Amino acid sequence: MRIAEIHLTPVAIPDKPLLNCKGVHQPYALRTIIEVICDDGTTGLGESYGSIKALEGLRRAAPALRGLDPFHLHELKSRVAAALPEGGGINARTAVADHKLTDVVTSAFEVPCMDIQGKMLGRSVGDLLGGAVRETVPFSAYLFFKFGAHIGQDKDEWGEVLTPDQMVREAKKMVADHGFKSLKVKGGVLHPDLEIETMFKLREAFPHHPLRIDPNGGWTVETAIYVARRLEGVLEYLEDPVAGMDAMAQVAAATSIPLATNMVVLEFDQIAEAFTKRAVKVVLSDHHYWGGMRASTHLGKVCEVLDMGISMHSNSHLGITLAAMVHVASATPNLGYDCDTHYPWVGADVVEGAPFVFRDGALAVPRGPGLGVTLDRIRLAELAALYEVAGVRERDDTLYMKQFDPGYERRVPRW
Amino acid sequence: MRIAEIHLTPVAIPDKPLLNCKGVHQPYALRTIIEVICDDGTTGLGESYGSIKALEGLRRAAPALRGLDPFHLHELKSRVAAALPEGGGINARTAVADHKLTDVVTSAFEVPCMDIQGKMLGRSVGDLLGGAVRETVPFSAYLFFKFGAHIGQDKDEWGEVLTPDQMVREAKKMVADHGFKSLKVKGGVLHPDLEIETMFKLREAFPHHPLRIDPNGGWTVETAIYVARRLEGVLEYLEDPVAGMDAMAQVAAATSIPLATNMVVLEFDQIAEAFTKRAVKVVLSDHHYWGGMRASTHLGKVCEVLDMGISMHSNSHLGITLAAMVHVASATPNLGYDCDTHYPWVGADVVEGAPFVFRDGALAVPRGPGLGVTLDRIRLAELAALYEVAGVRERDDTLYMKQFDPGYERRVPRW
Ligand SMILES: [Mg+2]
Ligand SMILES: [Mg+2]
Repeated sequence: MRIAEIHLTPVAIPDKPLLNCKGVHQPYALRTIIEVICDDGTTGLGESYGSIKALEGLRRAAPALRGLDPFHLHELKSRVAAALPEGGGINARTAVADHKLTDVVTSAFEVPCMDIQGKMLGRSVGDLLGGAVRETVPFSAYLFFKFGAHIGQDKDEWGEVLTPDQMVREAKKMVADHGFKSLKVKGGVLHPDLEIETMFKLREAFPHHPLRIDPNGGWTVETAIYVARRLEGVLEYLEDPVAGMDAMAQVAAATSIPLATNMVVLEFDQIAEAFTKRAVKVVLSDHHYWGGMRASTHLGKVCEVLDMGISMHSNSHLGITLAAMVHVASATPNLGYDCDTHYPWVGADVVEGAPFVFRDGALAVPRGPGLGVTLDRIRLAELAALYEVAGVRERDDTLYMKQFDPGYERRVPRW
Repeated sequence: MRIAEIHLTPVAIPDKPLLNCKGVHQPYALRTIIEVICDDGTTGLGESYGSIKALEGLRRAAPALRGLDPFHLHELKSRVAAALPEGGGINARTAVADHKLTDVVTSAFEVPCMDIQGKMLGRSVGDLLGGAVRETVPFSAYLFFKFGAHIGQDKDEWGEVLTPDQMVREAKKMVADHGFKSLKVKGGVLHPDLEIETMFKLREAFPHHPLRIDPNGGWTVETAIYVARRLEGVLEYLEDPVAGMDAMAQVAAATSIPLATNMVVLEFDQIAEAFTKRAVKVVLSDHHYWGGMRASTHLGKVCEVLDMGISMHSNSHLGITLAAMVHVASATPNLGYDCDTHYPWVGADVVEGAPFVFRDGALAVPRGPGLGVTLDRIRLAELAALYEVAGVRERDDTLYMKQFDPGYERRVPRW
């Protein structure tokens, strides 16, 4: 059994004007839907980034994968590396965290290969990863400050969220709708004192929910230490308060709150430094850039060995990604925190039916075979058509923010 | 598909009087052959230790595995832990390196589960581990000082090896017979100056073969540093020159020769300390106590992350173990050293035919399905019968040595 064909379909997903320290989400988030078809007709599904650079990497690597045995995942990685010899990051221009293109492309194709393996076997991907250790996977509410509407559009159902009290209202709706048992705030947006006030008000409204805040490296070391001191005993963890390994280590040394990251530990090569410098106590895994689902289980073991916790990162995504996240989470014994997901913000999908309904903030692990989701070709065609007309080809939260506030400049750190 | 039956068969293998720092190999080495049978008749094979403690652990855990899905390897580990709540080591009395009983028992059953998975799928175990990155797996010649004969027996075909020149002769025969491209000496037996001379004579006779020596922690720190200074530039690595993490760290700080171990890093919990103390540069994996074949691939990744090399450890073993070793080695990208094996010393097997013939010191990866080996019931019955009459129930190299030399005492360190 060999890979015969690969189809890559860029899609656009309607998104909300969610704020972060670099700007505001554009009206559309971009993804690429991946179909890997074997010579016997078995098809595997995948989902990855939709930026031009990611899409170009996927397109350049795809021909090199024709003829690959979908079990030969080490060879997948070598073929991708050979097809993209220049390497390089995919976000160098627009983001603080920059993922290696070869890691992203390997990851993108590993998921459909695992889906194929599971389908051949009639077993779930979780079973290929050692079996589920939990039947449901808990997620946290991903809370954002936000504008009330996109430019030129009507106010969305969430309205404006730019104050602590508005955030509490958003949290209440999120928890009422999906039952989340923990709360994560995307910070670095308001003045730190307002974000501290936000966390205290959330604590008051949800006395038993673990709380996190993630300013995406948007604070100075001084600000981060100030915030950490104020929020000792309030936060479950503090995610990327500052940018860079050494700055993280400085903050870590000054607080008892565990620091989490999806910005300074993005690849296996960075873990030893983080451990040695005691910069990080929790790593957020993400199968889109850690090398895939199998590699994410390796990451779990590495974190266990180094006495680091493991949580899970999310970007705006659809149901194929969500299925993969749930399988990885189900088969990672030491996953100690509720996973992130943007899924409740996304009003669209490419998978059939409605397989993902949060109950008490958790999702049931799909039973498979493979990922356990099926492509809905009508939905795919709709989101692919949206990509053509969306007028967005690259995520740039700062550029879009300038349309709201022409004087806005990207600054890291911001506060 | 569920596990329906488990058969455990202790066997004895004729062994040679090989010397180490704790004594001499008894006439028989003990193993347990494991058959796991699913409700649809699919059978998986495994091989583990044959000591009373290991056998008892296997026997106590086996009933708890009835009904287990052979894909649910995380659950396997939990069931084993629940069945053996007192934990404890399996070698506490006789060895320096002591393996956790739960790790040993989990590992012992993981291999047949993986064999079953591969058979269901019609794929090799290596494919379940991400696919082979090499078609053949290189092994080193495992050289021992030895007595000429067991007590009451005729001289064996290797004769006495108690001098540097005799060792060179042994190495020449090993290399002529199997084509090994690297040489490992089991040290800690002769006076260190004689072992140094041995390594120099091997270097002279085999100018291009990487050389290793492993005294099993039998030297003092002072002796180890002395030997290391004399052998700088001669050794590929120095394996467990001293016992204990701190002693290893002291020696490591005094030499540029990488230190390897299968004695101070036996479980995932010990790796962080070894890294922090810079005690070890190479970890010898062994699927019999690292949690199985999948866990051994995790170990590979952990070592990659911590910039440690990875090699592979061996005890006296049969072909089921060898098949598992070769599959793990084939699917461990960063395996950077030729693997150890006692197989050439063992004149027996329980698998059908002669699947393992060294060519240029390497073995071809079995094609599967599963492990790719079949149980030979006649051979199994013969070695099981030998177990009944062998009169050996526990490995004790020191006790047997006293039969050669009544004044012999176990001493760690010895030199
Ligand atoms: Mg983050
Ligand atoms: Mg050793």
